Amino acid sequence: MSTYIQDQLNDFKENRKNRGCLLINCPDKPGIVATVSRFLFQYNANIIESSQYSTDPEGGDFFIRIEFECPDLQSKKEEIKLSFEAVAENFNMDWKITFASEMKKTAIFVSKELHCLRELLWEWQNGDLMTELAVVISNHEDSREIVEGLGIPFHYIPASKENRNEVEAKQLQLLQEYEIDLIVLARYMQILTPKFVEANPKRIINIHHSFLPAFVGARPYDRAYQRGVKLIGATSHYVTNDLDEGPIIEQDIMRVDHRDDIAALKKIGRSIERSVLARAVKWHLEDRIIVDGNKTIVF
Amino acid sequence: MSTYIQDQLNDFKENRKNRGCLLINCPDKPGIVATVSRFLFQYNANIIESSQYSTDPEGGDFFIRIEFECPDLQSKKEEIKLSFEAVAENFNMDWKITFASEMKKTAIFVSKELHCLRELLWEWQNGDLMTELAVVISNHEDSREIVEGLGIPFHYIPASKENRNEVEAKQLQLLQEYEIDLIVLARYMQILTPKFVEANPKRIINIHHSFLPAFVGARPYDRAYQRGVKLIGATSHYVTNDLDEGPIIEQDIMRVDHRDDIAALKKIGRSIERSVLARAVKWHLEDRIIVDGNKTIVF
Amino acid sequence: MSTYIQDQLNDFKENRKNRGCLLINCPDKPGIVATVSRFLFQYNANIIESSQYSTDPEGGDFFIRIEFECPDLQSKKEEIKLSFEAVAENFNMDWKITFASEMKKTAIFVSKELHCLRELLWEWQNGDLMTELAVVISNHEDSREIVEGLGIPFHYIPASKENRNEVEAKQLQLLQEYEIDLIVLARYMQILTPKFVEANPKRIINIHHSFLPAFVGARPYDRAYQRGVKLIGATSHYVTNDLDEGPIIEQDIMRVDHRDDIAALKKIGRSIERSVLARAVKWHLEDRIIVDGNKTIVF
Amino acid sequence: MSTYIQDQLNDFKENRKNRGCLLINCPDKPGIVATVSRFLFQYNANIIESSQYSTDPEGGDFFIRIEFECPDLQSKKEEIKLSFEAVAENFNMDWKITFASEMKKTAIFVSKELHCLRELLWEWQNGDLMTELAVVISNHEDSREIVEGLGIPFHYIPASKENRNEVEAKQLQLLQEYEIDLIVLARYMQILTPKFVEANPKRIINIHHSFLPAFVGARPYDRAYQRGVKLIGATSHYVTNDLDEGPIIEQDIMRVDHRDDIAALKKIGRSIERSVLARAVKWHLEDRIIVDGNKTIVF
Repeated sequence: MSTYIQDQLNDFKENRKNRGCLLINCPDKPGIVATVSRFLFQYNANIIESSQYSTDPEGGDFFIRIEFECPDLQSKKEEIKLSFEAVAENFNMDWKITFASEMKKTAIFVSKELHCLRELLWEWQNGDLMTELAVVISNHEDSREIVEGLGIPFHYIPASKENRNEVEAKQLQLLQEYEIDLIVLARYMQILTPKFVEANPKRIINIHHSFLPAFVGARPYDRAYQRGVKLIGATSHYVTNDLDEGPIIEQDIMRVDHRDDIAALKKIGRSIERSVLARAVKWHLEDRIIVDGNKTIVF
Repeated sequence: MSTYIQDQLNDFKENRKNRGCLLINCPDKPGIVATVSRFLFQYNANIIESSQYSTDPEGGDFFIRIEFECPDLQSKKEEIKLSFEAVAENFNMDWKITFASEMKKTAIFVSKELHCLRELLWEWQNGDLMTELAVVISNHEDSREIVEGLGIPFHYIPASKENRNEVEAKQLQLLQEYEIDLIVLARYMQILTPKFVEANPKRIINIHHSFLPAFVGARPYDRAYQRGVKLIGATSHYVTNDLDEGPIIEQDIMRVDHRDDIAALKKIGRSIERSVLARAVKWHLEDRIIVDGNKTIVF
Repeated sequence: MSTYIQDQLNDFKENRKNRGCLLINCPDKPGIVATVSRFLFQYNANIIESSQYSTDPEGGDFFIRIEFECPDLQSKKEEIKLSFEAVAENFNMDWKITFASEMKKTAIFVSKELHCLRELLWEWQNGDLMTELAVVISNHEDSREIVEGLGIPFHYIPASKENRNEVEAKQLQLLQEYEIDLIVLARYMQILTPKFVEANPKRIINIHHSFLPAFVGARPYDRAYQRGVKLIGATSHYVTNDLDEGPIIEQDIMRVDHRDDIAALKKIGRSIERSVLARAVKWHLEDRIIVDGNKTIVF
Repeated sequence: MSTYIQDQLNDFKENRKNRGCLLINCPDKPGIVATVSRFLFQYNANIIESSQYSTDPEGGDFFIRIEFECPDLQSKKEEIKLSFEAVAENFNMDWKITFASEMKKTAIFVSKELHCLRELLWEWQNGDLMTELAVVISNHEDSREIVEGLGIPFHYIPASKENRNEVEAKQLQLLQEYEIDLIVLARYMQILTPKFVEANPKRIINIHHSFLPAFVGARPYDRAYQRGVKLIGATSHYVTNDLDEGPIIEQDIMRVDHRDDIAALKKIGRSIERSVLARAVKWHLEDRIIVDGNKTIVF
């Protein structure tokens, strides 16, 4: 990785060494916020940002994201985790604590269309995606130069329907070697097997080139053209084993008209895909997303 | 009709008495614009606005809309139409000429949700929908007061699956009586029979409360909620006998998030439906739309 | 007021009789959320929605809005207010508690352009603006019919530069009589004196027909046309004694192009003004806005 | 220049060798379209796209852009130009003909912020900006690597208030050497002298980081933050000698809120600047813009 970017990441970790984030999901009832905020206060933590959501004030589900700044956090991390167990049990919480200094490690999968990869690299170089970009894996050589030019390891693994299992075995091994937390499919045009998906729950983000649920599946721009739509869009979602049916993180659209042929739709679409995927990845890295069944709560 | 609105419509007709519009669709080849513009020049007509579109410069289809101002147009209308026949035949044109002074007559069909009706009435009162609003037909009484308050005839025809044929017979008779050119389904929640649709080709405009082709059919907001989309939309289209599959005229969307329950989606959706339908109707009234197979060209 | 609307407002009050909202602004330090949430928990209140913002985690300002549901709230209101005094003092808080059942009373001021008034009335009839629309005051008679038709008192007070003091004296008296909490200037084209503005701090909302700070002052659409902008907009803001310089609540824009003359800009602008003002008023009525110097925090 | 890009440009020229574009501005009167389209038909040209605009059908100005495909255009170019002289004189036209095969030569000026430069290079590599990117000139070394990596000449000319005349002399010489048709100021943070601007009328495009006319001049994001706006924007315009007052080509905005500090505004703003400038440059290169006084007509 280039020294400049490495310095930036180190600065970020240093600046945020006292920053933590608590994500909770539990049955709603009075007293949750009081208890959790009191817990944090015991560690002298200051709540920087807090967002919550209840599906129904009476008997629904409760979701909260609390970002906090806590003096000497590095020395208290384990203790905080341990002592929160009791709180969590009391309220029957599904929860996790993350620390900004423990930066997530990301792998990008890409094929021949590089616009989404480029956007992610760009945002990353600008310090807008706080992650260790650990590896890029592709079934084509097209992106090698741009990736290696930034000091990021690049692995070329040719893929087809025939060798899917071998390919995924290699990919899974790389993900393990690089200790990957997040897989971004930046227009990776191979279908993943259920085995691969199940091995990576809620941590594969895909960009689909339509506003789902319209145009599920292949060739959405061609089909958008045939249908004569006046808007085209893109959707970023977590990957599940139902094709293009996973929890939606972000969507956006742009206007088109009769003058736009398929090539024009693709061109316009590229700029939507770039920004939609980049936002989804950013929110994931900042622990802003809670998956609730087949939906996302984005705080 | 209230005197104020009638005056406005009459003013419009008077101001536009020399205004005409030529819509043409034919195989593309050199010389079309030269011939048509020369034709208009012979009548001393000035081209006010002109838009064209070719599907493919070599051997494709050619579409043009020309709005012109022609001195003494009222006395030349028949002659122009007749003498254009020869031009049209030469180029194998599908064409029509309309005159702003021959204002289209519109019928609005509505059920219990009145927001689209209200928007259309509002735009019409403001002089933004240049049409004779000849009649409102509803299967409920809810809109009678607001409609009759503006001096527009209101017909209550209760409808259900059982009496569809009788209902449509009454409706068709009213359309004939009022010499209707355009039928706007402003959230009219009854399905039309193929017979009714075929009797009114390319002149029924519907508003569907989703961004088609997502959520074709019933209860789109409920289904949008279930799917967890981050955008909701509305689509205005010409009605054909394929449910929600007719040529799309206009679409728009707004952002939503996890906090928005079904009621909130409907509320947000109403404001999209209002503006999308109003734009589609306006473009139709201004002869800006050419239907090309299952698509629209909106000039 | 029509029975239908009155019923709706009463239903709302009944459904929300246990709903309260706490708005706080104080110097940031650890323990605020813990203390406040514990306070609410003592009354067995459940936090429904909570949003907070810190200008700077270290030594900045802290803002929070907490919406809560508290059993038997009606009988506890005074006690809650009183006992919160001590908490507030400890943290040096600027604060208020509001109760959904104590609905705000609103006066609308309007001149000859009625689109903003119409939109507000529409939203109000739909149950989207929860307020007692107590009175409409106008320097023209144009809106009398539509206002009185909904059972809302209408007061015609002709106004000009010459009689400004008398006019405002009458207006202030009406505001007092109707116990007005919020004044909405829905395209009211008279300048208010400093005296009037100072008597109504942070409770006059205006709609300005440009995206401020562009085109401060008169005739913004004319000037937008002269400048050849490709976007026009509208801005809703609290009124202060600096013309068009008060805290901005909401803004929006639409695209325009060279074909749009001043009349077209005004027409397009009307639809922006309508929605921008309606959103701002709604947020105010829901106690979502905290004014911080010359800015707003909208939760 | 890289072989790949050079090949792409050559393909474009070859594919478009019969493509021309006619831009006309003259007093409106009947017969213009008839005459011009007849003129083109004489050369057997097929009109591919045509857009027109009249400021006022009676006695206003008329603008038209006609894109045409003409067999053997290369051999007829001079003849067409010459023989159009007579037509033009008759109607008192201000006009020009351009040929797609005579690709415009562009110089980009940039300082330390590279996002706009990167976007332009990206679009250019994708074949979306059809121009010979002849040279990049900068008062900093930051962009040298990325520019030279694409085979584009890079010239470093340090600049300050003190040496403005020398710097511009060097720049003007480079513009002459490279036969530059278009200068793009892609966040070039030096003021140009009237002499420089006058030497390059209607061919310098700037990106200003606000929605003009708001925040003319320096530090617009800081001032947007101070004002508490809810939208920020960017404006691309031709440079004249009135600072930020030249004809606007394109503008766009994005929503911001109280959480966005100045750094966040700049980050959001960068993505607006990128796309707004790219669109403006693209339209200029496609001869879609006619400057009319201090406004643009974008066809």
